Amino acid sequence: MKNRPLKGIIPPLVTPLLDSDTLDARGLERLVEHVIAGGVHGLFILGTTGEAQSLSYRLRAELIERTCRQVRGRLPVLVGVSDTSLAESKALAHKAADCGADAVVSAPPFYYAPAQPELVYFYTHLAKTLPLPLFLYNMPSHTKVAFAPETIRQLSDNENIVGIKDSSANGAYFQQVCYAMRDVKDFSLLVGPEEMMAETVLLGGHGGVTGGANIFPSLYVDLYSAAVAKDFDRIMPLQRKVMQVSNLLYTVGRYGSSYLKGVKSALSVKGICSDVPATPFEHFYEKEREKIKTSLEEIGLL
Amino acid sequence: MKNRPLKGIIPPLVTPLLDSDTLDARGLERLVEHVIAGGVHGLFILGTTGEAQSLSYRLRAELIERTCRQVRGRLPVLVGVSDTSLAESKALAHKAADCGADAVVSAPPFYYAPAQPELVYFYTHLAKTLPLPLFLYNMPSHTKVAFAPETIRQLSDNENIVGIKDSSANGAYFQQVCYAMRDVKDFSLLVGPEEMMAETVLLGGHGGVTGGANIFPSLYVDLYSAAVAKDFDRIMPLQRKVMQVSNLLYTVGRYGSSYLKGVKSALSVKGICSDVPATPFEHFYEKEREKIKTSLEEIGLL
Amino acid sequence: MKNRPLKGIIPPLVTPLLDSDTLDARGLERLVEHVIAGGVHGLFILGTTGEAQSLSYRLRAELIERTCRQVRGRLPVLVGVSDTSLAESKALAHKAADCGADAVVSAPPFYYAPAQPELVYFYTHLAKTLPLPLFLYNMPSHTKVAFAPETIRQLSDNENIVGIKDSSANGAYFQQVCYAMRDVKDFSLLVGPEEMMAETVLLGGHGGVTGGANIFPSLYVDLYSAAVAKDFDRIMPLQRKVMQVSNLLYTVGRYGSSYLKGVKSALSVKGICSDVPATPFEHFYEKEREKIKTSLEEIGLL
Amino acid sequence: MKNRPLKGIIPPLVTPLLDSDTLDARGLERLVEHVIAGGVHGLFILGTTGEAQSLSYRLRAELIERTCRQVRGRLPVLVGVSDTSLAESKALAHKAADCGADAVVSAPPFYYAPAQPELVYFYTHLAKTLPLPLFLYNMPSHTKVAFAPETIRQLSDNENIVGIKDSSANGAYFQQVCYAMRDVKDFSLLVGPEEMMAETVLLGGHGGVTGGANIFPSLYVDLYSAAVAKDFDRIMPLQRKVMQVSNLLYTVGRYGSSYLKGVKSALSVKGICSDVPATPFEHFYEKEREKIKTSLEEIGLL
Repeated sequence: MKNRPLKGIIPPLVTPLLDSDTLDARGLERLVEHVIAGGVHGLFILGTTGEAQSLSYRLRAELIERTCRQVRGRLPVLVGVSDTSLAESKALAHKAADCGADAVVSAPPFYYAPAQPELVYFYTHLAKTLPLPLFLYNMPSHTKVAFAPETIRQLSDNENIVGIKDSSANGAYFQQVCYAMRDVKDFSLLVGPEEMMAETVLLGGHGGVTGGANIFPSLYVDLYSAAVAKDFDRIMPLQRKVMQVSNLLYTVGRYGSSYLKGVKSALSVKGICSDVPATPFEHFYEKEREKIKTSLEEIGLL
Repeated sequence: MKNRPLKGIIPPLVTPLLDSDTLDARGLERLVEHVIAGGVHGLFILGTTGEAQSLSYRLRAELIERTCRQVRGRLPVLVGVSDTSLAESKALAHKAADCGADAVVSAPPFYYAPAQPELVYFYTHLAKTLPLPLFLYNMPSHTKVAFAPETIRQLSDNENIVGIKDSSANGAYFQQVCYAMRDVKDFSLLVGPEEMMAETVLLGGHGGVTGGANIFPSLYVDLYSAAVAKDFDRIMPLQRKVMQVSNLLYTVGRYGSSYLKGVKSALSVKGICSDVPATPFEHFYEKEREKIKTSLEEIGLL
Repeated sequence: MKNRPLKGIIPPLVTPLLDSDTLDARGLERLVEHVIAGGVHGLFILGTTGEAQSLSYRLRAELIERTCRQVRGRLPVLVGVSDTSLAESKALAHKAADCGADAVVSAPPFYYAPAQPELVYFYTHLAKTLPLPLFLYNMPSHTKVAFAPETIRQLSDNENIVGIKDSSANGAYFQQVCYAMRDVKDFSLLVGPEEMMAETVLLGGHGGVTGGANIFPSLYVDLYSAAVAKDFDRIMPLQRKVMQVSNLLYTVGRYGSSYLKGVKSALSVKGICSDVPATPFEHFYEKEREKIKTSLEEIGLL
Repeated sequence: MKNRPLKGIIPPLVTPLLDSDTLDARGLERLVEHVIAGGVHGLFILGTTGEAQSLSYRLRAELIERTCRQVRGRLPVLVGVSDTSLAESKALAHKAADCGADAVVSAPPFYYAPAQPELVYFYTHLAKTLPLPLFLYNMPSHTKVAFAPETIRQLSDNENIVGIKDSSANGAYFQQVCYAMRDVKDFSLLVGPEEMMAETVLLGGHGGVTGGANIFPSLYVDLYSAAVAKDFDRIMPLQRKVMQVSNLLYTVGRYGSSYLKGVKSALSVKGICSDVPATPFEHFYEKEREKIKTSLEEIGLL
């Protein structure tokens, strides 16, 4: 992977669906063009926001193909290969390499929660055989285990392991990881939750894998640039807008799926792609969709 | 499925492996014959003890084929189809049906944790298209969500949903489920943790999916029969032996994987099958294996 | 403490209150007489059901005095002294001894969660200076830590530590504790959740600290006796009734406080004592109270 | 309280002890003078770092008296009154007011975990009768509940509730709280974990309740000032030093108590006060103490 460390805004793309096992291919094209037009620095498909785990492997393969073809090398494509099975992770990674993706991203096996030495064992095996560089994906709320900072540092001895996306939302932890990696050159430190992207970039982070960048790519790109420039006159109003998005769009439903449904519903209201999530989730119905529409107007970004 | 509700000891078979992606086919044959000889009432493959999530789909298919062929209808075969993707669950279920299995078992999608209405939605969809009867699999420590008793009752309206395996270890919850299902005929109520099998059978449960029955099938079958017969003169010494197994064999390692490694190591010491677990776990080395051997001698069952 | 191990039904008494810091003294008298009349084998005041942690120390002292005076040695009185401060625990224990109580009960310090060696340290210190025998109180949902079975066995070397009340609801754990204590004479093994009292007694447990025994003492006493006698003709209908209580009375509210409010509301409907809980909880209002009343009629125990 | 919102570095003072129930009075004097000399903006006694919950009420009262007397109004004194009992919280608050403290700090009742409406009820009652302004204390790892941002906004309608200390370490949450409070004037937004103090101040937070400021008060004061001034040439090396402290001093032991023991041990090595923690913790012995000493030298702050 050139241009290491990877920096900037890398949206975790939603997977546009017509139904649980059919890609919304036109929607995907529009979505990819929409975020590229917004100036993002890379794409991450098949992450948590991409509902990877809920999709069939056939559909995941189709998504990798179509996305890479649509992007045509205009910016780096990262592909989620998180799986409970090492063999299936490898298969996905090879598919990604064949399609011309730039890197893969892997969260720990998420059924049996591994201990730290078992994480080292798993990722050492995975990295050894991978055709592409690998980003670690820290997502303890879903995987029940967090990479210890020292585990990350140890794993970075594999030259194939080139960065981490931390979605723990733990600000102290993110700093501990930055500190543990202080002497490792070119290791990319990306944060998940968009609410804390600016502050981590100010303190040395490399960017964000921000879900809202599906809907408003330039908002997050602008905030990132302002943070890199340490331009607080721009940071403060942009951060306020990011918080408004988080506050209005991700809290409409009643369950953990509210965030995902909010992003997909907003994209649908904006005419970009379908709002259908994969089973076990259902899309928002009229009442919630109205709320999303009103909120988009209130944010002033419809 | 005939003979409803399913009752008795249904061992959650370990998956004998030569390496992370190669079945120990001879070991599997010996294991199947070993537990059948011990008098068990069914087999459950591709559960948590079977390390299903760590295996490739190719290997899972091979395991289903070989097990069904080996069993030749001598007793019911249940196949775990737990998956985060509805499509992959269905594919596994169809494979199971094609091979002549008797039922499938499914734990909730385990990456994104669903809410109760989302569980209802998921299982209603799954049950509708299934070629085989379905057992719910309650495993909150791994899936981050438990079936509410009322959700189970509601799902049992699907005539395809025929039972539950509860591995929560929560004794109050198991009784609440029994109570919620009191008027539903022929719904099978099976418990996971072998330490509480006898007491749940005494109070109306239908049996156990007991990991130790891989190693000592007749011990668990005897305890089950004694519990059905309410014969406390037999229950008490057998329960003591079961606790000895749990205490000596499942606590040798340092991580959550100790139970699995203990079972596989004991099977290997007894010459039944290989002790290799799937990545990310490693098998026990000499020191731990020695301990397992000594413990087997102490238990008096080597 | 004579008559070791303590056996039977020991209700965790609610604390009848006129307001958050005023005892309902008449209600307390009626409650004590009500449960004694129901045949219970001991009383446990200032437990979780007794809302101990929400009460002022002054009120706790008054409750100890009044309860011991009312009981007049007719049956053992156990006093909860769970506190985050060793000094305050000791002070409560001395108050209990002065009033003639028979034993104290202590859950681990519940702010900072201690590790196992720290539990050993804490309880060794506590036991050394106590004027009364001590029951350990396992309540991980509230204290964030569970006693390892081996910790309990180690602590039982203090002759002052005479039993455990396990409110984890974990049936496998309870059996592991029973097994760890198999060679320790006279150590009392009591279970909290009433739904699993019968089955633990059948397998060798000594009884239950069952919240419903505040309302229906003889129901739980009868079930306990039936379990001791292994009389399944009596056990099954009584267990069904116990499940009905659990299902109808503890699920009316929307929060974790539903159980407590349900017990207090039922006692108030039966005219035994006030239904006022201590801050931060509020009592049930008309609608929920009506539901409790209807449920009591349905149970046939009003 | 004048000078609202409270801003800057407010160390959560450790409680110097000779034994579990005896104050190290000389140590306390030295500690207070040490942090005041370091330029801190306030003191917070009886917080988590102050081991409040492990101390007797007598000792807590003595600590309040001595600290207020020693400070003599030179800077604001905040007193932790977190308690499971509303009555005991009030009593502590009155003691604090009598001694001339400036505000109190309260974490949610930490035995029974309250729901959000119950938090509103509890704090509305508490605030109504308090003689001093109140800071909310968000500490979900210890109390099992977090204040929802909307709960904080609602509670801020009580003019007595003047700020929050957030020790969740959740960076997204802290921004959500800032956003929820955007139109509430003079509400103090303080963060607990020192690793994220600088970044929250850069984004609009008011300061930190940083445990390391017990040992190195001027380090945290300097970092705070640099963050207020948005002076990145100073921020980056100071943040690095703060991470070094966190990395070297708080990770020596094996349990959750490592942080507390590390702070106390470092203070003892520096000759400021005793390293004795309250039961159930033990102080570091020679080997760990040596490590702390070496680390202090490595940090260059001994």
